[in-house]
This record gives sequence, structure tokens and C-alpha cells, in this order.
Amino acid sequence: MKHNFRTLSEFETVLGSQPEFDQISYERALKRNSELTKPEGSLGRLEEIALWIAGWQGRHTPRLDRIQIAIFAGNHGIATKGVSAYPKEVTGQMVSNFENGGAAINQLAKLYGAQLNVYALDLEGQTQDFTVGVALTEVECIEAILSGWDSVSDESDLFIAGEMGIGNTTSASALAAAICGGEVEKWVGRGTGVDEVGLKLKAEVINKGLQLHLTDMPSPLKVLCRLGGREIAAIAGAIASARFKGVPFLLDGFICTAAALVLEKTFLGSLDHVIAGHVSAESGHVLLLQELNKEPLLSLGMRLGEGSGAAVAIGILKAAIECHNGMATFNSAGVSNKS
Amino acid sequence: MKHNFRTLSEFETVLGSQPEFDQISYERALKRNSELTKPEGSLGRLEEIALWIAGWQGRHTPRLDRIQIAIFAGNHGIATKGVSAYPKEVTGQMVSNFENGGAAINQLAKLYGAQLNVYALDLEGQTQDFTVGVALTEVECIEAILSGWDSVSDESDLFIAGEMGIGNTTSASALAAAICGGEVEKWVGRGTGVDEVGLKLKAEVINKGLQLHLTDMPSPLKVLCRLGGREIAAIAGAIASARFKGVPFLLDGFICTAAALVLEKTFLGSLDHVIAGHVSAESGHVLLLQELNKEPLLSLGMRLGEGSGAAVAIGILKAAIECHNGMATFNSAGVSNKS
Repeated sequence: MKHNFRTLSEFETVLGSQPEFDQISYERALKRNSELTKPEGSLGRLEEIALWIAGWQGRHTPRLDRIQIAIFAGNHGIATKGVSAYPKEVTGQMVSNFENGGAAINQLAKLYGAQLNVYALDLEGQTQDFTVGVALTEVECIEAILSGWDSVSDESDLFIAGEMGIGNTTSASALAAAICGGEVEKWVGRGTGVDEVGLKLKAEVINKGLQLHLTDMPSPLKVLCRLGGREIAAIAGAIASARFKGVPFLLDGFICTAAALVLEKTFLGSLDHVIAGHVSAESGHVLLLQELNKEPLLSLGMRLGEGSGAAVAIGILKAAIECHNGMATFNSAGVSNKS
Repeated sequence: MKHNFRTLSEFETVLGSQPEFDQISYERALKRNSELTKPEGSLGRLEEIALWIAGWQGRHTPRLDRIQIAIFAGNHGIATKGVSAYPKEVTGQMVSNFENGGAAINQLAKLYGAQLNVYALDLEGQTQDFTVGVALTEVECIEAILSGWDSVSDESDLFIAGEMGIGNTTSASALAAAICGGEVEKWVGRGTGVDEVGLKLKAEVINKGLQLHLTDMPSPLKVLCRLGGREIAAIAGAIASARFKGVPFLLDGFICTAAALVLEKTFLGSLDHVIAGHVSAESGHVLLLQELNKEPLLSLGMRLGEGSGAAVAIGILKAAIECHNGMATFNSAGVSNKS
């Protein structure tokens, strides 16, 4: 589906008309699942995953042949405040590393035969430092959302978004604090590895941003403009786009989940086609996943970004599909069922 | 290494002389890990896994090209007591299903390019019902241990043992209760899906077995003979064999972990080359893993056996290896390190 929105308010309208799960494909897959040579439910979440993919792909034989991973990179004005352990040049340097095949996500994409695309979103024109003004204008924000929207192919069987952006855990924490409320400190983590002083600084910067931007009770999408970043907006666009294109979405870490939060708080149910790939070591992530009622597939203490946690979870989804599609039935194998 | 034991007491001696981790390979892999283009520690357990494999393979460039999965199948006299939801014929029927490629483990082995071998261990000559006598004589037990030992190729990069045996959660629970102590009920779970009545029956049967067999404070290996099964003994043999052959071992569910418990309680440290692939839905499994200080890689509510949970975890190990071996270094990629 081509996008048909050009403003945040039109995007909000689009979110109100998202397609649902295909019940017929789901039911057919459910029937097959009950006939496979295993005790009922003994593959646990693998069974749920196969059925969920069938429903969202609208295919009773789910498949994961074409997996798309898109990395969105953006620079953050807030990085000048010293909220990251790394200099902001690293965003662009890592984009080159992605393009040259040297990053973790390149190895994971290769392992699982996924296509990897990199979107460098106006790295020269970083967002504005949100302690002094809006991070993105509405026009800049919708442009980023559209980049994400257009990145999703309706030929894909699964979509993963990854991100790269020095300073972006600060933006994501600000989004989470603004939308979910509570003490700012609980949403702030170490990102790429700041120390205690860095943690305090992040919280101070975010508090300043919230004071500046939350005076008029803005909608979640407006919060995204004011505190977010291009890569975060793009990921929100990609999640929504995947829904319209019948592509299940596998969610990565804290920053991606902050993008997802914006959608869910704009329109409840916006994440029904989204499964959480992992819970990261970034301290706010587990809280965000709880807020969204998403049970992560993996908990491996990862905190790299790039879509890497979700990419590791591809193996679990492939395992689910292979079992569902490839196993014999009790009848075909001549195995006695439960006595 | 060929086996050089023919009795349980000789096997016990072998366990006392297990080779250790290769510190040099570990240190070289550790150095490389610190140079890769990612914040230190940001791949979480993936980093630990790559280093652990390097150490146990004795290769500073760890690899997972040759993965072996062996399924050991055995029948249990105790099954005649009605402790399973399935008739005991299913053990042999599932062996045919494995051989014909129709089971879950076949799909998972194919997905990850693993070799799959099936060992049907004297399915006609089931173990004796342990409520009336020893499940296995020492000769039968050592034969099963040797089957497991011989199944491990020293050319393998990783070994997974799986099991099939109607009634074997009852044997595994009996082993756990006998070795770890505590209320029998806490070690008893639903297996392939027994109801409340079945659960009670399992606990009664196990209590009867413990009363008969624990009067003389037997060693863990003697407990294995009296309450275990051929497939459980074989898995214990395979775990020990992998250690001598420099093959890291990926542990599956409750029954495999009960086999592992026998080794660890015979000689502390026997499981240092073993990583827990998953925690299953069988209620005693989480307790056994805690007893052994093993943090599972996955928790997906699986309870199928066949090595299936461990097989799903292969993807995580492969992800770790691919990142470790394939990523660029800060120097080679021209990426700025932490400021």
C-alpha cells in the first residue's frame, strides 16, 4: 500500500483504520497444529508464533523466506549535551560499517539470509537539542515517518527495524517518560555505557525537555516530534506500514519500543502484528514492554541496537515455521495419540 | 578418546580426570572481542558464549560447522503404572518418525544444518518397574552410558542429546528427588500432559521407588541404575564424552538435565562444558537448573523433549559465533571508540 498521508493528523487517521488479523488463515493453521506428532502445546511459544505469523501474513502456510532488516540512522542535537559515551561522528561511521558489512547486524542478517538496508536520515541535519526547542518540526517528522513507511516491501514475510544514533537512548527515554509518566530516572539507562555522572546528566537533560514540551498535553505523535529523532519516527512509520502490507514485525530494543509506544498510545491495538524479539539490558526496556503487554522472546543482556536483538530472535521464528510446516501428523506417521 | 571404563566405578574414576577449558584460546578470543565495533559488553551473553565455545573447543576462532544431535530412546517398565498420557508403543513409533524425518527435531536439525542420529536402546527390553526392583542392572547401565559415550564424534563442534521414552519424566523426577531431596511433589510435572490424578500417581510411584532404593545412601551413579533409564544413562555418557573430546554440550530439558545432575553430583565441575539451551515447562526443570547454577538461554514454554529446546538455541550460539568471527574491529572499520 502506498502512503496516503502528508501530515501528522492524516497519519493519525491512517492508524485508526489498520487491517486486522486473518482469522481464516489462523484457524486453518490451528487445525494443522493440532494434528502434528507432538503432545498438544508441547512446542510452547513456537506454536503460538507459527499461528500468529499465519494470521498476520494471511497465509495458512506461514513462511519466512523473505526477511527484511532496515537500519535507520539519525543524529541528535541532544548529543552535544554529553549524554553518550561516544562522539556523534560514530553514527555516520557506523553507517559506513553497516554498508561495508562489518557490524554485528551484518553477520546476523547473513546468518539468517535476511536482506539488510541502511537508511541514513539526514545525518548532517541533526535534530534540534530538545532542551532548547522541538527536536523535529512536523514536516521533518512526517518525512522521517514516510522514510520508514516506504522502506517496507509488501513482498516481505517479516520486517525488523534497527537503529543507530548517538544520543538516541536519551530521546527514547524522554519519549517514554513523556508518554508513560513516572519518575524520569526509571526511564534512564546507560545506553552505550555512560557512568553515574552520565546517568544523572541524562535525567537532567530529559527533565528540562519535559518542562519545555509538555505544557500543553501534546498527543503522542506531537511528543515524537518534540523529543524524538528521525530514526525513531521512521521506525514508527515502518511498524504501521508493515501492518497495512501484511508483514509481521519483529521488535528490537528500547529505542524501537519507544517508537512502538507512540503508535500504541495513539491507537490501541496498533502493535497486534508486532512481537518483541528481546528485552535489552537498557533498564527502561523491560518497563516499556510491560506497558505494552509484550513478552520478549529473548533475554540475553544485549544492548547494541542495530536491530541485533530482534535479528537473533529470527531463529526462533524460523524454528516455529519449520516445525509447523514440516512435521508429520499423527495419522501420516502412524503414531498413537494420547490414550 | 576411546572409552577406558567397563564398570560404574571405573566411569566414576574417569569423571575425576576431566580436561579443563583452554585458557589460551579463551584469552585470544577475549582480546578480539574487545576490539570489535560495538560498545564493550553490548552483545551480552552472545559475547560470553563465543568465548566459552573458544575455550572449550580449544580454538581461538570458535566454529559451529559440525553440529551433532543424537536422540536416545528407551522404554520404561514404570510406564505400565499409567504415569504417562501416552501408551508405551509411542516410543518406538516416534523412533520411526525420527527416522522418517517427521518429528519436530528433524525440522530443527535441518534448519540449522545439524546431523541427526537416533539410538533406539533396547526398546524391547524395557527397564524394570522401579517400584519392584532396580530399573537397570549395573551392566545394563554401563552399556547405555557407553552408547552415549561412543555417539560423540571428536570432529563435532557442538553436541546436543535428545531423548524419547514414554514414562521418562517419572524416572527423571525420581532421580532428581533421590539426589536433591525435598518433597517428591516439587519434582513431579505433567510430562506429555497427565491430569491431576496422573500427577498424584506419579508422586506415589516415585515415593515407592525411593523407599525401596534409597535405604543404603547410594552414589548418584547407583541411583541412576536403580531409578533411571537407558536414554538417561546414555545422555550422561554423552555429556562426559563430549568433555574429553573438546566438544561443547548444549543441554535440552528436564530429562537431559537429570542425566547431567548425576554427573555433577558425582564430580563437581563435570558440567563446565555444558550450557543450558532452555528451561522447559516441566515444573521440575527450573529447580534442577538452579541446583546446577545454569542460566537457560531460552524460556519458551516448550516441553517436547527430542532435544528440541536445545536445538532452537543453536541459533543463539550461531549468532554469537558469527558476530565474533565476522565483525570488523574499531581500527579496521575506522570507527571512533568510547570518548
